[in-house]
Amino acid sequence: MKLTILIHCADSSGIISAVTGFLHKKLGNIIYLDQHVDQQTGVFFMRLECVFEKIEVLTKFKKEFEEDLAQPYKMKWSIHEAGVKPKMAIFVSKYNHCLYDLLSRYNSGELEVTIPFIISNHNDLKSIANQFNIPFHYIPVTKTTKSEAEEQQLKLLKQENIDFIVLARYMQIVSEKLISIYPNKIINIHHSFLPAFAGAKPYHAAYERGVKIIGATSHYVTEKLDAGPIIEQDVTAVSHTHHIKDFILKGRDLEKIVLSRAVKLHLQRKTMVYNNKTVIFT
Amino acid sequence: MKLTILIHCADSSGIISAVTGFLHKKLGNIIYLDQHVDQQTGVFFMRLECVFEKIEVLTKFKKEFEEDLAQPYKMKWSIHEAGVKPKMAIFVSKYNHCLYDLLSRYNSGELEVTIPFIISNHNDLKSIANQFNIPFHYIPVTKTTKSEAEEQQLKLLKQENIDFIVLARYMQIVSEKLISIYPNKIINIHHSFLPAFAGAKPYHAAYERGVKIIGATSHYVTEKLDAGPIIEQDVTAVSHTHHIKDFILKGRDLEKIVLSRAVKLHLQRKTMVYNNKTVIFT
Amino acid sequence: MKLTILIHCADSSGIISAVTGFLHKKLGNIIYLDQHVDQQTGVFFMRLECVFEKIEVLTKFKKEFEEDLAQPYKMKWSIHEAGVKPKMAIFVSKYNHCLYDLLSRYNSGELEVTIPFIISNHNDLKSIANQFNIPFHYIPVTKTTKSEAEEQQLKLLKQENIDFIVLARYMQIVSEKLISIYPNKIINIHHSFLPAFAGAKPYHAAYERGVKIIGATSHYVTEKLDAGPIIEQDVTAVSHTHHIKDFILKGRDLEKIVLSRAVKLHLQRKTMVYNNKTVIFT
Amino acid sequence: MKLTILIHCADSSGIISAVTGFLHKKLGNIIYLDQHVDQQTGVFFMRLECVFEKIEVLTKFKKEFEEDLAQPYKMKWSIHEAGVKPKMAIFVSKYNHCLYDLLSRYNSGELEVTIPFIISNHNDLKSIANQFNIPFHYIPVTKTTKSEAEEQQLKLLKQENIDFIVLARYMQIVSEKLISIYPNKIINIHHSFLPAFAGAKPYHAAYERGVKIIGATSHYVTEKLDAGPIIEQDVTAVSHTHHIKDFILKGRDLEKIVLSRAVKLHLQRKTMVYNNKTVIFT
Repeated sequence: MKLTILIHCADSSGIISAVTGFLHKKLGNIIYLDQHVDQQTGVFFMRLECVFEKIEVLTKFKKEFEEDLAQPYKMKWSIHEAGVKPKMAIFVSKYNHCLYDLLSRYNSGELEVTIPFIISNHNDLKSIANQFNIPFHYIPVTKTTKSEAEEQQLKLLKQENIDFIVLARYMQIVSEKLISIYPNKIINIHHSFLPAFAGAKPYHAAYERGVKIIGATSHYVTEKLDAGPIIEQDVTAVSHTHHIKDFILKGRDLEKIVLSRAVKLHLQRKTMVYNNKTVIFT
Repeated sequence: MKLTILIHCADSSGIISAVTGFLHKKLGNIIYLDQHVDQQTGVFFMRLECVFEKIEVLTKFKKEFEEDLAQPYKMKWSIHEAGVKPKMAIFVSKYNHCLYDLLSRYNSGELEVTIPFIISNHNDLKSIANQFNIPFHYIPVTKTTKSEAEEQQLKLLKQENIDFIVLARYMQIVSEKLISIYPNKIINIHHSFLPAFAGAKPYHAAYERGVKIIGATSHYVTEKLDAGPIIEQDVTAVSHTHHIKDFILKGRDLEKIVLSRAVKLHLQRKTMVYNNKTVIFT
Repeated sequence: MKLTILIHCADSSGIISAVTGFLHKKLGNIIYLDQHVDQQTGVFFMRLECVFEKIEVLTKFKKEFEEDLAQPYKMKWSIHEAGVKPKMAIFVSKYNHCLYDLLSRYNSGELEVTIPFIISNHNDLKSIANQFNIPFHYIPVTKTTKSEAEEQQLKLLKQENIDFIVLARYMQIVSEKLISIYPNKIINIHHSFLPAFAGAKPYHAAYERGVKIIGATSHYVTEKLDAGPIIEQDVTAVSHTHHIKDFILKGRDLEKIVLSRAVKLHLQRKTMVYNNKTVIFT
Repeated sequence: MKLTILIHCADSSGIISAVTGFLHKKLGNIIYLDQHVDQQTGVFFMRLECVFEKIEVLTKFKKEFEEDLAQPYKMKWSIHEAGVKPKMAIFVSKYNHCLYDLLSRYNSGELEVTIPFIISNHNDLKSIANQFNIPFHYIPVTKTTKSEAEEQQLKLLKQENIDFIVLARYMQIVSEKLISIYPNKIINIHHSFLPAFAGAKPYHAAYERGVKIIGATSHYVTEKLDAGPIIEQDVTAVSHTHHIKDFILKGRDLEKIVLSRAVKLHLQRKTMVYNNKTVIFT
């Protein structure tokens, strides 16, 4: 049995010793440990992977963890058993490059996840969903139908017990309600090097400004547009020879790679969110 | 004799043919030609390097160039003879990394330039100027002495016929007057990936936002703060393990390299400015 | 009518003037011109894109180009009419990431090409070919059947008038015969930063050596293994925390992007080969 | 009192718990912990930074560490007290860019080190040493004087109790004797992306091969030329427009940055060597 354990709490002396001592007592062999202290706020973060010689009853293990560690140190924690695949919903609109990238990785076994469905406000990408045998729900969104559309989305998400959502160039702003149900569990890709060029048409804005490098940013969605905790960013060089359409083409390659990296980090439980920032364990 | 020729004008058919024909007639061998058309504005840009078998009288050459090419095509142009070193003034405050980088390149013969003096609003870097035997003028700037200080600067710049100015982490905003005398001839280094984090304390702002990449930007100074035409940008990865002081240290390496690249591009006449953007020939 | 013209010949004075003069006389408007002189060998390279007001008869145009320019300057040249899609064959084995990347770009209209078929020495990727409705030919290769297999390949290539071949992680060495029929027209992706780690198992070798950066290289195939003219390379950082399987996963993202970039450069006639090196126009 | 502790030993269950328990008992607060297990060889590596409330007698601390931890787990370990500056000797020949970069960082207080002297087989850089007030020893090396020269070097190194040596583009091969006295304590910068282009004239070789990216590599010197454990690498893009002299100029910026990064990692005790590879803690 292998567990991944995430912890954060106020920093104090002896936490690492207490946690590693507890796991040693449980006959666990720590195969990964990384920790971080945010000096500004005095918050301690830790991620462990631990292999146990014999199978523990997980509920009992969690109860003892809570009593022996979490309560004394006032920890927030989560424990994830290896091999349990999270359920991921994908939201798309008309651009296909991120969807193709995610689905081809999924098909290759690179993403340890199940994909119960794809939701889109357009019908354009239905054929790709069909190609990969993933159910596709066309839920159009207009000004007047926005709340109904969301109800439909929420119903589907609940029905399939979706764990997290990937906005793979979904061109709609998701509602506060959805965000509150999936806090730090909605992953977006924005086609700029945030915080530069937040909002609509970032490639146009980058072209206007005459930048020499463009970027893409994957972040958790919060109520403030394009301002959530950043998971991953990457950039590529451009020059005066590139027009907006070249920015868009070059950007596509960034977007798909950056989004897929962020999804993998999330899946591997390597992300922790605090104070609108992320700790990304490597 | 080797000339570098820069041209821009409204795009029209036959310009390249006319220019290259003119140079061929003058027994010039074109060793470099690059051109660019800005599709949005229909402006044509060209940079040529041309070697001439026999020495032309430059004033005569320029006169014919004006009559045969510039007037018919309504060109703006400049012609630069190889081997003539421009005069560069350096403005600094307290940070030494950009100054060291520029002066060590200068000492190695990497920059084809003369440096008549360094101006600073602090005395801290005087010893470095001494190390490299460059005159150092300490001109303090306070709210009340700002205009006097500038007059002193202008006097020195005029006295030495300075061609262009490098702000090597000069922590003062230069005046509109100075900018108007040196249009597209004042090169600044800003310690962020512009347009993100313009203004003061960009590393603090980047840390607050939780970005995963930081950058530096070299640009020509215009009246609008940190909004001039970008010459060069570069970035480096950061993570949650880096504090603001690490951003500053990592940033230093970016700043000095990016600024030196920009200075070299300017010296080699590889930059053209149009519409608050640059064409950078390679 | 839009033509792309590629030229190379011994460098001499007046070539650019002659070519641009010829095109101007033909009422062509040059919208792109880039040239390069290899100083070591004295060879001149030029790439032009030219739009013509009225449709030229291409055979007549080429005849005059040959007589007026190519013969006097002893040029090697090719002229390509815009809108004519080349025919590209893809060879694969078992890895699907490059194939997925190429086909999803093809489906999105990003690659101006037709793909008459995919050839593979394994049956594993047949379903992907089916997904995208591309004919798939399974031609197994064993020591004893190698030459027969190649005859089958050649027959298919001839039958469909294939213009160029992409080896999208095809794990067989192609024969001298095939290379001689498609000189500088077979594009391979090698999963290392060549010339480091040529040959088999480059990620294993990179891991053994303890490098901090891994790469991928796309090149034209020549008789010497992994030693052909390099079209495109890219790299990504690795650390001691990455095992060989991580190198392979990270490498996949490099491979697919680098190969697709190389294919696009080839399609856009931006590559010229000389002396086992490439000139890549931008 | 702050200590940095480096440990490596055969991996076994309970090590982390034992070490962190020991430090907790000593009233130490762990402010940094990173560990790594080499899966191939089963070797465990750990780096800790620990702050102690009251000053420990270091000899007593080390004795107990040895008895309680090192002996039971058969650890190799080292303990370094913060604030103790190591002594670094710099060896140079004629190139000044790495020397300038190191000395300007040293002067800025960026490197926590003392530099008792610079050794060179040429007199060219003496003036730079003078600029920075560092003693400069000119020790010429010829085929016939090589062993004498080395004796002189060794005498100086011993005299000043030098801790480690930086070869800042020192164009001589150092002897096995010197290497054996300073195992994993001689840092070299090689001007290529190793293992590509080991040995002499790597930029010439890179140009010949037509690579699209060049690199620099900093590594610990071992008896096998350019084959020691790699500490840091970086790369930059090149194209057909760059001649060998451009490779050299662009390479300089890589070399100085990569070497300085490696020196800083070494100084911060963030490097561990095993099996001719490095573990680099971040």
